[in-house]
Amino acid sequence: MSPTDRPVISAARYAERLERAVAATADHGLDALLVGVGPDLRYLTGYLAMPLERLTMLVISAQGAAIVVPRLERAAAEAGVHGDVRILTFDEGADPYALVVERIGGGRDGIASVAVSDTLWASHLLGIQRAIDHDARFESVDIRVASTVLSELRMVKDADEIELLRLAAHAADRVVAQIAAGRLIGRTEADVSREVRDRLLAEGHEEAAFAIVGSGPNSASPHHDASERIIEAGEPIVLDIGGKLSGYGSDITRMLWVTGGDAGKGPDEAFRHLFDVLYRAQAAATRVVRPGIRCEEVDAAARGPIEAEGYGEAFFHRTGHGIGLEAHEDPYMIGGNDEPLRAGMAFSVEPGIYLVGRYGARIEDIVVCGPEGPITLNEAPRELYVVDG
Amino acid sequence: MSPTDRPVISAARYAERLERAVAATADHGLDALLVGVGPDLRYLTGYLAMPLERLTMLVISAQGAAIVVPRLERAAAEAGVHGDVRILTFDEGADPYALVVERIGGGRDGIASVAVSDTLWASHLLGIQRAIDHDARFESVDIRVASTVLSELRMVKDADEIELLRLAAHAADRVVAQIAAGRLIGRTEADVSREVRDRLLAEGHEEAAFAIVGSGPNSASPHHDASERIIEAGEPIVLDIGGKLSGYGSDITRMLWVTGGDAGKGPDEAFRHLFDVLYRAQAAATRVVRPGIRCEEVDAAARGPIEAEGYGEAFFHRTGHGIGLEAHEDPYMIGGNDEPLRAGMAFSVEPGIYLVGRYGARIEDIVVCGPEGPITLNEAPRELYVVDG
Repeated sequence: MSPTDRPVISAARYAERLERAVAATADHGLDALLVGVGPDLRYLTGYLAMPLERLTMLVISAQGAAIVVPRLERAAAEAGVHGDVRILTFDEGADPYALVVERIGGGRDGIASVAVSDTLWASHLLGIQRAIDHDARFESVDIRVASTVLSELRMVKDADEIELLRLAAHAADRVVAQIAAGRLIGRTEADVSREVRDRLLAEGHEEAAFAIVGSGPNSASPHHDASERIIEAGEPIVLDIGGKLSGYGSDITRMLWVTGGDAGKGPDEAFRHLFDVLYRAQAAATRVVRPGIRCEEVDAAARGPIEAEGYGEAFFHRTGHGIGLEAHEDPYMIGGNDEPLRAGMAFSVEPGIYLVGRYGARIEDIVVCGPEGPITLNEAPRELYVVDG
Repeated sequence: MSPTDRPVISAARYAERLERAVAATADHGLDALLVGVGPDLRYLTGYLAMPLERLTMLVISAQGAAIVVPRLERAAAEAGVHGDVRILTFDEGADPYALVVERIGGGRDGIASVAVSDTLWASHLLGIQRAIDHDARFESVDIRVASTVLSELRMVKDADEIELLRLAAHAADRVVAQIAAGRLIGRTEADVSREVRDRLLAEGHEEAAFAIVGSGPNSASPHHDASERIIEAGEPIVLDIGGKLSGYGSDITRMLWVTGGDAGKGPDEAFRHLFDVLYRAQAAATRVVRPGIRCEEVDAAARGPIEAEGYGEAFFHRTGHGIGLEAHEDPYMIGGNDEPLRAGMAFSVEPGIYLVGRYGARIEDIVVCGPEGPITLNEAPRELYVVDG
């Protein structure tokens, strides 16, 4: 599939998102929404730039939307920014933060109430705080993260975004199938991990962000990366891989067991039981997905079967995370999150059971909340892959 | 070249870097140095993780060095962190910021003086500020960026780092040669840019971070990305490409002129003059590099020949930036920076001349300050590439 066959977010869509962000900024009583380079900026304007020491910042305030960019990036911003956004430039070596702060509304009672994008660099945030301190209009500042304003927009994906997530999921599905069909025994985890990354790129990802290969006891470390450990016959492998395709994330986990072709080296009964419990837990959590269900209920649905079999302590992470322009974003499937699901929300469902020092397992799909129930984007079989390796 | 043939930073080197950072933190009168996921953490401990919503933070204080990680990443941190660093974990959903702030020293006069890594996410910085506000020991907080402490360490590269920068530079050199030898006319800039990225990866980069292809009038936009403009015979192309190889940056700019094999479509006299001035400026700036010369003098050396020919206004960015684990880092070759060069500093030398609406040019090498003068890492010819295209 060539990148030109993929959905493209239209200029009209960007304009609409920006309008909604302008309204939300006012609704939240903010004097400004300050968005640096990153997923929020891409979402609102389509503009992509490298996060660097020179400030690039979209400023949404009562004065409308403007973007502050280095003078040498004016033409790039003119070409890349969608929507009704004024472009303001600063010369090399000049202080861009005062330019940002000038556009912040008057404030109430001398307080500057602003939200900054969650991934903004500390160097830029400190620059903004300094400039606000130096502005005679403000006696103090109240800074929060922009996700408090923008998550409600970004969480609900439109049809094009869901299609991009689906294309990313299917590409990752194909890589799982390719790895499961290939040689594994005698290779290091790191070597298999490199193969995963190459294959994600070959399948159309522009970024292979992670390629966890956890073999044997390493399967019990949820965020194990990939080591120089050599894979042996008679052990499980966690394959948790993903990246970005046209900006949208993939993230899938499947479990392999390599036998070396020796029937005596298949999964032992204890592992089969653990996997069976996990499989039922992952299916149960997926099954409850529908509009109105709270995120914590999805988490509880996964936890039920696992706790019933006595593995509760061995499942020590949340059940899932939202996914879109970021690998992890709202909404999170975690105890205490009473956010109700809405149609169009996309997230992972990925319970795990980890017996430290022995082995562990995790199964993960990307699931969209459909109008009437779950839509699972990944199509790779989620049964245990018992392979020769 | 396989990744296993590359220099590896030894555990002893990491231990030494960490010791120096502990000493520098005390020397700067700081109560703590707080380092999130990113280049500072990689430099000090070798630990690589994805920057995510779950906090990972190295805390250097009078209590020694500790790293706060999510419980599910304990094993990954144990495997990945070098040096004498205590590992502290927090459970899923728990607040990690209090754990960080507990390790900050007592403060003087109730002020918490801390430095945070420059690229730390705003969400994490705001979390830390909140936790300090809630700590009864502190009445106020003084936060600065960690580069004020760590740049003096990171700016001077050791032999292994220089070798990695050299390998990255040579890989980028080969990509320039490949692109210059290939077909260009009739293709879009974006298509050539994709080829550049593929070739950077094929030449051993793990990340192709940027691939500026600016043809015709787009060559006058310094940070032009790559558009759907179709390249035509009889125009210049700026090729400014780079990425990461074993964590270390490449960054090279060369100028092409495509003729389509038609001698009548070669560079016009005005462009030849512009390029000649630029070539002399870039050589002049490189030539002055030696220990003791101030960064602003390197900038001035590039500016001299350009201003003498009346192009001063058309060179509106600094002459260069440091390079290492970050694409741009200290030291910056810019007016007003009186930092003296030291042997082992690595940076770009990249003057440009931009005639907006018409065309522009830039030449860029990565240069190391050697004990007796400049060591240019890039070996690709820097003359104008007049090619059939």
